[in-house]
Amino acid sequence: MPISLGELAAQFGCELIGDPDVLIEKVGALANAGSGALSFLSSSKFKRQLSSTKAAAVIVRPEDVDDCPTACLVSDNPYASYAVMAAALHPAPAYEPGIHPSAVIAASAKIADSVNIAANVVVEDGVTIGKCSSVGAGTVIGPNCSIGEHCRLHAHVTLVRDVKVGDRCIFHSGSVVGADGFGNAKTDDGWVKVPQIGGVSIGDDVEIGSSTTVDCGAIDDTVIENGVRLDNQIQIGHNVHVGEHTAMASGVAVAGSARVGKRCMLAGMVGVAGHITICDDVTVNGKGMVSKDITEPGSYASMFPIEPVGDWNRRVAKLRRLDKLIERVSKLEKGDK
Amino acid sequence: MPISLGELAAQFGCELIGDPDVLIEKVGALANAGSGALSFLSSSKFKRQLSSTKAAAVIVRPEDVDDCPTACLVSDNPYASYAVMAAALHPAPAYEPGIHPSAVIAASAKIADSVNIAANVVVEDGVTIGKCSSVGAGTVIGPNCSIGEHCRLHAHVTLVRDVKVGDRCIFHSGSVVGADGFGNAKTDDGWVKVPQIGGVSIGDDVEIGSSTTVDCGAIDDTVIENGVRLDNQIQIGHNVHVGEHTAMASGVAVAGSARVGKRCMLAGMVGVAGHITICDDVTVNGKGMVSKDITEPGSYASMFPIEPVGDWNRRVAKLRRLDKLIERVSKLEKGDK
Amino acid sequence: MPISLGELAAQFGCELIGDPDVLIEKVGALANAGSGALSFLSSSKFKRQLSSTKAAAVIVRPEDVDDCPTACLVSDNPYASYAVMAAALHPAPAYEPGIHPSAVIAASAKIADSVNIAANVVVEDGVTIGKCSSVGAGTVIGPNCSIGEHCRLHAHVTLVRDVKVGDRCIFHSGSVVGADGFGNAKTDDGWVKVPQIGGVSIGDDVEIGSSTTVDCGAIDDTVIENGVRLDNQIQIGHNVHVGEHTAMASGVAVAGSARVGKRCMLAGMVGVAGHITICDDVTVNGKGMVSKDITEPGSYASMFPIEPVGDWNRRVAKLRRLDKLIERVSKLEKGDK
Repeated sequence: MPISLGELAAQFGCELIGDPDVLIEKVGALANAGSGALSFLSSSKFKRQLSSTKAAAVIVRPEDVDDCPTACLVSDNPYASYAVMAAALHPAPAYEPGIHPSAVIAASAKIADSVNIAANVVVEDGVTIGKCSSVGAGTVIGPNCSIGEHCRLHAHVTLVRDVKVGDRCIFHSGSVVGADGFGNAKTDDGWVKVPQIGGVSIGDDVEIGSSTTVDCGAIDDTVIENGVRLDNQIQIGHNVHVGEHTAMASGVAVAGSARVGKRCMLAGMVGVAGHITICDDVTVNGKGMVSKDITEPGSYASMFPIEPVGDWNRRVAKLRRLDKLIERVSKLEKGDK
Repeated sequence: MPISLGELAAQFGCELIGDPDVLIEKVGALANAGSGALSFLSSSKFKRQLSSTKAAAVIVRPEDVDDCPTACLVSDNPYASYAVMAAALHPAPAYEPGIHPSAVIAASAKIADSVNIAANVVVEDGVTIGKCSSVGAGTVIGPNCSIGEHCRLHAHVTLVRDVKVGDRCIFHSGSVVGADGFGNAKTDDGWVKVPQIGGVSIGDDVEIGSSTTVDCGAIDDTVIENGVRLDNQIQIGHNVHVGEHTAMASGVAVAGSARVGKRCMLAGMVGVAGHITICDDVTVNGKGMVSKDITEPGSYASMFPIEPVGDWNRRVAKLRRLDKLIERVSKLEKGDK
Repeated sequence: MPISLGELAAQFGCELIGDPDVLIEKVGALANAGSGALSFLSSSKFKRQLSSTKAAAVIVRPEDVDDCPTACLVSDNPYASYAVMAAALHPAPAYEPGIHPSAVIAASAKIADSVNIAANVVVEDGVTIGKCSSVGAGTVIGPNCSIGEHCRLHAHVTLVRDVKVGDRCIFHSGSVVGADGFGNAKTDDGWVKVPQIGGVSIGDDVEIGSSTTVDCGAIDDTVIENGVRLDNQIQIGHNVHVGEHTAMASGVAVAGSARVGKRCMLAGMVGVAGHITICDDVTVNGKGMVSKDITEPGSYASMFPIEPVGDWNRRVAKLRRLDKLIERVSKLEKGDK
């Protein structure tokens, strides 16, 4: 829905440099936005795209105003301003209240009147769903789950059982929350399954990506605090505790009973071993392996970047001959050659 | 369902030190179990929690009895004893025999009378399901699959086709078994798909985690032997053979035609290259990359633990200058400086 | 369906050495193919299996003809010849045109007459499906998706919204295409969700594996070009561009806005950082981390293979003492000891 630049500036508290009556219809990437489009520049990295942009207006930091060839909305945090303006220009689809006739809803479920439930959804015993939430096609909500208000479960989500969800949470397709954790006791005759009895407790404003799995707790609950953002294909083991506003990129795996602090950022494919603790405000770079506690905030890494295979193989061979090199240096130190 | 300590001791063959009439209602974690709760101590790591526990009873090793402030059930393997007692105290939900009217069942499917099939399940041609098995909401069982007795398929499982499953197996939500392996023949015009004709053969007492994928064989079957435990988000390629009682943690990927021995343990995010063989009784630590055969039982690793980014970058830089260091040592050995 | 060797040779342009009237009924692996089975030898690695094969015929390279104990079909690319012959011998199941009565199809969807739609499928508003395509049980096709001709969507696929698919594409079970990318703007109060407005554009002859996720674009589309092959459990972030005929093995993750060239091969568990570019004809070995642009075709690696844990720990310790070694060499160079 089109909004004038003047309205955007007023509604979202930015200074406008340009014609307030220009209508913005949509957002666009700096490099290929056309007339009627709003773009943003949040990083100097993309600054060379600014001078040639055809966007109707660009959200910029104060220091970039002079380099902007079009109307500017000035913000100290252009990406965050872009986020809220984009949501206003492209509102999420509204879901009409109602339950599709093909959905199968347990008699004991308590579903607010304003909830939308799509085709082929299954809602099992003892479920509650708060007002203005919506449930996508084919999603299964297992026994004793409770979902807050204004949540969006996309198609093909599975809440297995005993999952408590706060308000304004988003679950993407293929996510599975509340399945059994990996609990196996070793015996001489093989593994004995350890019953997984706990549930999952999820705060407000949490987003869980496609094909991400969050296991139920072994005894007590697995906990995801407010404002956590999990990308796709993430694994959260049983009894993990993820602190508020922590974000994890795709492919992270956090093993059972680990505690991840608040405001942490785990980049793609990071692994976190079981039973360890990561303090608040820790960043781990892509593919890093966290195998013991991190007690100091900061950035951590453990991954070699790729090289041409020949170079890499020589490097590995040299590392493997480091023993020999150390011996040779010791000999030299002793005066041998 | 509450069970007295005396009954637990008798039923599961533990010595009881304490009042046999105390009723146990549930299990609890050592640190926060309350009255009526049974806990366990299986590792010295958690021993300091023992002295202050409020549990009604604790399953302990003989050597920990003296340090236990409450009633003890004495076991040489407390975790395994806990597993079976927890299952008695918290029995899995019973599924009433019957097929939900919304399920779509092929006429040619043979389903034992005692089977439970939940809402929106689809069972295709030629499927057989043995007695006392249960199938969760929305699960799809494709053509020519056979499922043994006392199996539990949770919601949103997909058995694609030609999957043979033994008895007492568990499939968690989002798992996909029997999809095509990754077979592509290279030509000058791009890839030609190689038909994937084999099935998947799964033994007894196998558990397959959420979002885990097990591909069908290219020609012969992919094989998962008895007692194998696969955690979430694991990939098993076509014609992989996994030996009995092997366990893999979340995020492991085993490429096509690899053979993993019996009683192996692959920790999280381990990768196994195609066509290689891992012998019995091998442990691979988290994130290890197995790129050639392992012929000796034992523990293996190849992952650097994380460090602060600055330290790590200096380490990588030094590794990259190892060539130069080797040259400098050679010069020194020749008497040059 | 049985085909004579003579017909196979004629139809697929191979020279036949042997009796043209022998009927081939199926394919078989070189090591255990029986009478009536066709096998192939594409790599010298398996040559020792050739001499003892019981296959009725083997597809071989010209240089292997003399070592083949049975009838030969001679091909410069035996694996590709095998692929097309296997498809002739084991044709994919044919799906009868028609829509299962349990499917829920939006009135505005346009579905060609020859399309097969299985049980419990959901097709939402504005979807088009081209002729001879088939949709497996429980699959959900969200609003404004368009699917070309001769596509196969297996059971439990999710196309979230605005996914444009070419002809002859295959989507395996559990794949999720078009879910929101991971866009979050940081503020003092936590993360603000950045609306994900773009769609996904997929070319012809693309295959997408089980539990693989391809996110929609943030503003413009995520693009997968013709002939791309994605294995299972792969993550493709928002606005990634994958060039034609590129193949990625299981567990690869490509972060947002990265560009992967044409004819690249990313082995299992490779990670690609966001916003980087990989040129055409690049191979990255298993578990490699691509953290900056690759501008030269070739093969790249960055993964240490596993070693016994003791050896590995000593290696890591030595690497960590490299600083000291460098100091010691410097001292020696200065004449100190």
